[in-house]
Amino acid sequence: MTAVSTGDLTVITAGAQMFADTLRAQGVATTEVAWLPPVAGIEAPLTSVMLDPRRVAANARALAAMTSAGASLVDVRPAREALDLDAGHFLHAGPPIGWERMSGPLRGALVGAVVYEGLADSPEQAEARLAAGDFSFEPAHHRGAVGPMAGVVSASMWMFELHDDVHDQRSWCSLNEGLGKVLRYGAYSPDVIDRLRWMGEVLGPALQTASRATGPIDILAIVAQMIQMGDEGHNRNRAGTLMLLKEWLPALITSGLPTTDVTAVVEFVSGNDHFFLNVVMPACKLMTVAGNGVSGSTVVTTMARNGTDFGIQVSGLGDRWFTGPAQVADGLYLANFGPDDANPDIGDSAITETAGIGGFAMATAPAIVRLVGGSVSDAIATTRRMYDLCVGDNQRWALPIMDFRGTPTGIDVTAVVRTGQLPQINTGMAGRLAGVGQVGAGLVSPPMECFEAAVVAMAEAVPPMTAWR
Amino acid sequence: MTAVSTGDLTVITAGAQMFADTLRAQGVATTEVAWLPPVAGIEAPLTSVMLDPRRVAANARALAAMTSAGASLVDVRPAREALDLDAGHFLHAGPPIGWERMSGPLRGALVGAVVYEGLADSPEQAEARLAAGDFSFEPAHHRGAVGPMAGVVSASMWMFELHDDVHDQRSWCSLNEGLGKVLRYGAYSPDVIDRLRWMGEVLGPALQTASRATGPIDILAIVAQMIQMGDEGHNRNRAGTLMLLKEWLPALITSGLPTTDVTAVVEFVSGNDHFFLNVVMPACKLMTVAGNGVSGSTVVTTMARNGTDFGIQVSGLGDRWFTGPAQVADGLYLANFGPDDANPDIGDSAITETAGIGGFAMATAPAIVRLVGGSVSDAIATTRRMYDLCVGDNQRWALPIMDFRGTPTGIDVTAVVRTGQLPQINTGMAGRLAGVGQVGAGLVSPPMECFEAAVVAMAEAVPPMTAWR
Repeated sequence: MTAVSTGDLTVITAGAQMFADTLRAQGVATTEVAWLPPVAGIEAPLTSVMLDPRRVAANARALAAMTSAGASLVDVRPAREALDLDAGHFLHAGPPIGWERMSGPLRGALVGAVVYEGLADSPEQAEARLAAGDFSFEPAHHRGAVGPMAGVVSASMWMFELHDDVHDQRSWCSLNEGLGKVLRYGAYSPDVIDRLRWMGEVLGPALQTASRATGPIDILAIVAQMIQMGDEGHNRNRAGTLMLLKEWLPALITSGLPTTDVTAVVEFVSGNDHFFLNVVMPACKLMTVAGNGVSGSTVVTTMARNGTDFGIQVSGLGDRWFTGPAQVADGLYLANFGPDDANPDIGDSAITETAGIGGFAMATAPAIVRLVGGSVSDAIATTRRMYDLCVGDNQRWALPIMDFRGTPTGIDVTAVVRTGQLPQINTGMAGRLAGVGQVGAGLVSPPMECFEAAVVAMAEAVPPMTAWR
Repeated sequence: MTAVSTGDLTVITAGAQMFADTLRAQGVATTEVAWLPPVAGIEAPLTSVMLDPRRVAANARALAAMTSAGASLVDVRPAREALDLDAGHFLHAGPPIGWERMSGPLRGALVGAVVYEGLADSPEQAEARLAAGDFSFEPAHHRGAVGPMAGVVSASMWMFELHDDVHDQRSWCSLNEGLGKVLRYGAYSPDVIDRLRWMGEVLGPALQTASRATGPIDILAIVAQMIQMGDEGHNRNRAGTLMLLKEWLPALITSGLPTTDVTAVVEFVSGNDHFFLNVVMPACKLMTVAGNGVSGSTVVTTMARNGTDFGIQVSGLGDRWFTGPAQVADGLYLANFGPDDANPDIGDSAITETAGIGGFAMATAPAIVRLVGGSVSDAIATTRRMYDLCVGDNQRWALPIMDFRGTPTGIDVTAVVRTGQLPQINTGMAGRLAGVGQVGAGLVSPPMECFEAAVVAMAEAVPPMTAWR
């Protein structure tokens, strides 16, 4: 017996979990280093990408572009006008996908949108026309737009329009319908269509009037405040919704619109804690667009799901998609729904995590980890883990609980593949079957495949060593 | 050299700070037990009070009454009507005080109130009449009301009226004027009086219409939400203000009042992050009133300051005041004001700490400790320390960062005197001179004297030991 064992033992372990578990079972304090061996078979391309002499500077440039972007709400108008969208052409969430591979909620939302546009007299007829190939589809991301859940946009739907005056870019998102039986979760019953009509006839025009009278509203400044108020900007947007409404109020009240309409609009907006999500998303899209297209940068600029595939885009590879199978979230179910009712992960809302909030800012919204039985320390641990995957912090968005450190920003695909740790996404869950609507909310991760595929593609684009300076 | 010194030393110290400091200077990890000897000379009465067999049950009863109280906003009306207040009779913050001992800001607020009531043609005339004894004063607390800072209430001022439907009690507070040059900070310039007139002619009547049409608004439920949104309810009421405005909005918009008035009211309320403070305070007053008058209970039911004296009341001693000199806060100064410009602590707003929020919920609002150069861990340490002074937690008000533990509630005077630790109060700072207005915001503690005096009085009220069962 040597002297050292008479004091308290403290052990540091790295790698194999078994060592730490065994020691802890014997009551020995153990500090684990979060090191995991890289995913098997990926060593060669990973090494090549990590040695790319452009990488560090390119990532710094991508991060600087993301964190310096502007995002002001400048208008509210129909997609027909804002995006030059024709009737019969539909935008959807996530990477490209054809009707035959589409999941229930995406099909359901398209059925509803076809009925809403008057292109079919019944859901049955809409489905038949969709299956027959009468209409065309395109990812919202391809138009600089984003949509939560199914993310379906048709010509008559009204859109928030945001502008980045630093990089002169625009982004768009539809208006949030509320929770439960709504189109974006795949529901298309008559009440869903009626609500869309009211949104097109009353809500959209009222918010257009209010937004134009108010002038540009700095959405990034509201996000900076909301993340100090328990909102992480993805599954919780309570303070953000009230702060946006506050900006519109004077213009809404003096709009000259019928009082019943103004009241209905105010009650609709303030009664839906998620209303602000559809403004946060295009703001995050503007940040990631600003960071896209930097040669040699391994920063993820899109994470999006169509309910079947999870797709990412990487700054140095422009608009190429890298996909893998969408996962089912772990979370809390509404009413008597259960895991069998849930569709795999769907929606463009993971743009919030791509820009450093949502699951990445979990530490500021511990109420959300309670959905999966977690505690405050789990929430803090999640944000800590995300710092390890990111190229930097966003000083404009300070997290009080992290001693005002900026949000973890700019997911590095090499960090994901090297550590085996995946980005954490907070999400709603859609019913598996078309027409059901929301069944729950919870936490989910992307499939590792898309990050591996991106690393392989990055490796192919690394300049030959002879070209290095 | 024995074996133990080859490992890392960890030392636990209790009492004299010097041991811990010396060890730490030598690089030795030291855990301090926050134990302090009781205040000298107080041992005998303290022992007597702590041995009082009624104490534990009485404190549990006081806590249960506080945490089960209701507090709904039920009306907004003039003090003349709500409190049967005559012209020439003025309420003020803190314990009783005469004109000759009043501080600058309290005198300034009274001067402004006399001018506002038309009882003098100029501030000079108002001051002369006040000094001549033409008017009468009374603590707001004596009428079940509370007021921030000077807390001056005159007959024409409009009041929030709250009702506790569990204990059938009412409480009142004036409407918040905003920050800077305002009456409650001792300012009385013409713009201050003009604002009070607008509040009496437009704001008060509009909020009366909105409140009566809306019906009772559960203020404790809003507080439960706001403390999950970075507000501690004393120096930060941002989310609370927006949530209260949201409740009023439909009624305000459909009130039939002129659109310009509705817009002005909405902009006034939403443009003042402190507006909700004047609703939180009477809600806290209802909680503490519910816990007052329990024989044998050592729970503090009032902490209030008039700018000269700091006074407390204790449940087992009913409405008796125990006072000591008010202290100057440590904090951040506005513009080019400094410590010499600050008046000692003033206002009834420490009713928030008495009910378990404000400085007691500091952990949820780390932005506030930054005022005094503190960090997140200082904020958490403050709330931890307050648990040590309190008889229990309020389960209705969960603090996310404390793993959803309830707010520390029911300050025990024996815990304060026994440990030498004082309650932590967040506060605004008024200028020392009448007429100046706000000079800063910061942190302050009560003087130990009032807690000692309360312990001595409690000891006199302990039944003789022969009466113990």
